[in-house]
Amino acid sequence: MDSKTYRERRERLRREVPDGGILLLGLGEPPRNYAANPYPFRQDSHFLYFTGVARPDAALLLTPDGGEIFFAVPGDLDTLVWSGAGPSPAELAAGAGVAQARELSQLPAAIAALGAAAVHYLPPYRADQTMRLAELLEITPTAVGAGASRALIRAIVGQRSIKDADEVAEIEDALGVSAAMFRAAAAAARPGKTEAEVAGAMQGAALAHDRQQALLPIVSVRGEVLHNNSYGNTLKAGDLLLLDYGAESPRFYASDITRVIPVAGRFDERQRAIYQVVLDAQLAVFAAASPHATNRELHFVAAKTIAAGLKSLGLMRGDVDEAVAAGAHALFFPHGIGHMLGLDVHDMEDLGDAVGYPEGEARSTQFGLAFLRLAKPLEPGFTITDEPGVYFNPPLLDMWAAEKRHAHFINYSEIRHYRRFGGVRIEDDILITADGARMLGPGIPKTPAELEELLRR
Amino acid sequence: MDSKTYRERRERLRREVPDGGILLLGLGEPPRNYAANPYPFRQDSHFLYFTGVARPDAALLLTPDGGEIFFAVPGDLDTLVWSGAGPSPAELAAGAGVAQARELSQLPAAIAALGAAAVHYLPPYRADQTMRLAELLEITPTAVGAGASRALIRAIVGQRSIKDADEVAEIEDALGVSAAMFRAAAAAARPGKTEAEVAGAMQGAALAHDRQQALLPIVSVRGEVLHNNSYGNTLKAGDLLLLDYGAESPRFYASDITRVIPVAGRFDERQRAIYQVVLDAQLAVFAAASPHATNRELHFVAAKTIAAGLKSLGLMRGDVDEAVAAGAHALFFPHGIGHMLGLDVHDMEDLGDAVGYPEGEARSTQFGLAFLRLAKPLEPGFTITDEPGVYFNPPLLDMWAAEKRHAHFINYSEIRHYRRFGGVRIEDDILITADGARMLGPGIPKTPAELEELLRR
Repeated sequence: MDSKTYRERRERLRREVPDGGILLLGLGEPPRNYAANPYPFRQDSHFLYFTGVARPDAALLLTPDGGEIFFAVPGDLDTLVWSGAGPSPAELAAGAGVAQARELSQLPAAIAALGAAAVHYLPPYRADQTMRLAELLEITPTAVGAGASRALIRAIVGQRSIKDADEVAEIEDALGVSAAMFRAAAAAARPGKTEAEVAGAMQGAALAHDRQQALLPIVSVRGEVLHNNSYGNTLKAGDLLLLDYGAESPRFYASDITRVIPVAGRFDERQRAIYQVVLDAQLAVFAAASPHATNRELHFVAAKTIAAGLKSLGLMRGDVDEAVAAGAHALFFPHGIGHMLGLDVHDMEDLGDAVGYPEGEARSTQFGLAFLRLAKPLEPGFTITDEPGVYFNPPLLDMWAAEKRHAHFINYSEIRHYRRFGGVRIEDDILITADGARMLGPGIPKTPAELEELLRR
Repeated sequence: MDSKTYRERRERLRREVPDGGILLLGLGEPPRNYAANPYPFRQDSHFLYFTGVARPDAALLLTPDGGEIFFAVPGDLDTLVWSGAGPSPAELAAGAGVAQARELSQLPAAIAALGAAAVHYLPPYRADQTMRLAELLEITPTAVGAGASRALIRAIVGQRSIKDADEVAEIEDALGVSAAMFRAAAAAARPGKTEAEVAGAMQGAALAHDRQQALLPIVSVRGEVLHNNSYGNTLKAGDLLLLDYGAESPRFYASDITRVIPVAGRFDERQRAIYQVVLDAQLAVFAAASPHATNRELHFVAAKTIAAGLKSLGLMRGDVDEAVAAGAHALFFPHGIGHMLGLDVHDMEDLGDAVGYPEGEARSTQFGLAFLRLAKPLEPGFTITDEPGVYFNPPLLDMWAAEKRHAHFINYSEIRHYRRFGGVRIEDDILITADGARMLGPGIPKTPAELEELLRR
């Protein structure tokens, strides 16, 4: 990706949103516990997509006459002493292929010259963006969200949804780091170690590659809590350890991988059986992934494979199709099969359901299906995750059991034996091709045999 | 620290700010590149100090009649599935020793009942706090900063500045993790490795202890750039590697340590000489630290020791006292000698100069002295950093040399030989006692002999 790539992306955006100005705001440094103590800076993904500029405090304005103005903050003596002399606004603009560079302090005047009402902008996801937009557009903070441009959202969703070869290569690069992170985690995961020790080894491996993580990693023997970000438990021989984590590529594309490790080094019989159900579902989804399917259809491929597998284990019963249509499987598989992946782990999630749902189609409110982020017809160039799971969440089991919910499909008496099982999720990243799908990355051990081989010490 | 501690702290605060309501807002989760992808959560330090509650989305309101109301968000079905069932508002309140608990959604009504004008609040450092306060107090976001309570700021600075034994123990606990981080870094720092590999080893060690870092670490062979947070360089045998980093304790108190490692395993002659100048300054400051001194005086102890040392090496000349009074030493030592340390690395920096300067006394604008964050008389119970440094920043050297600035004190022709030297800073954390000072923590190798012994392979 060079300045030509960014220029072409902007030209296409300009063609698709021909009228008015287009404002893309870069992010500022996010304060942790006081202003001068920031979290590691991560640029806004849209700003990265259209400029490649990863430094804080920048903005891009496309004017209706085809002009482009890049705004940034020039350095001063304090910058020199504290941060080192960085690139000038003109140098940053040149890297993005933008001819005009100005100081960020001139952005309000440039917006005013266009007329704030004629400026397309994206919905903010951080309060500092909201306040900045309110100032620039001279509207109240509460009016900012409603004024975001639907035309701009649609155009960007269209562009960013289809990854080119360079973008796919970035995701595969991030997956290479994921593979190294997994090896570090597997080496650290032994009985008596804490989740934190495994997390430290895994995250240290990403940092050693000078990569930030794409998400807060999940490193948990309580994998049934889907986004469990605490690391306080000590690993025991009978535990399953769930790792859901990602790294960023040099250009900030994400990987997103989930693996489950038997802490003992070998799966016991029950673990092996549930693991196989999830693996069957994951492979069935991969086999069905193509431009001929919608992602909702893939979700149901997973749901039915899981329901059939759990039926064979005596945990579910009755007709599989009916059970899935009723949502009974969601007791065990309460989330969606996957989501778009790109510059964001949940790619473009800040743009809302325009990303995952065809216009005019609303999300289901059914438990489980409500968390399906992507339901659209798949297209060549989509990069998505394939991540089914089976979980035994005791409070949820108790709640459903007390109501006898879907009792003709769920064998509550058998489930009692699985109360302390935890959860299994297996996740890979895939590319939709012209006639099917390709598994991305170097391959990370996934079958029980591969995992047990890796864990042999 | 238990609920009694927090209750006593609030009772003292209430006595010192007797009129009106006192609102302390906990922080929300900070979004990274979209709302559902947050940075690791860190609670606001004032909220931690007065409640101990480290979970997001909480608030505390002290009413003028001595009442206390704790606000938090109760869990729902989604919380159960995604994050696990957490403590209820009542359980969180009980941990903080607060009798009354309500849902956070009831905070606006509680504020309105008091009358927003009668509510003391602290100045915000994040935009989400600003927007929240504007909504709660029914004022514009731009009016929020000016309305912050000076009485509340003064009272909290008074309380938090003096650490009790439990707080000192927390800082020392964090220093224990710092020691482990330093060992990991020293083991990784060899010629041919990257700064990122050292940073990964060091940060991985903190994470393995389930600790967040108190600041973005500096791991740089270009230590002359004071807050250099890039990790792209490869270590060479002649380099000095500067590490400035900190960990948090279980109750979120910070450590802040700087060490410099000769990548070759041994200092060369010039490195050893400059290192010794900085070490002499650091030890002179420690020897002078007591309730009988101001921190500005400690700053000048460091400045004079550095100027005298650099004079003995032929880099400065003339009268040392005159050189320091003129600010000539700041070419090499452009920052302050240290700052308060506690729940924040720069403790209470969000409260402004009330923390470090006596009322009515303004910071100097002289280059170097302008960065002295703490100038006050020291008091028993202060925990502060002692961190002198000597740097050779080529663009800064060129700028001063071109102007012949302070040429009667600075030997510019000799400095040319140090252009690629980099920088040395040595930092420890100290407690002011009744009649002197105590070095905190387990001790981390610091003398050239100790460092070379550690690096022997």
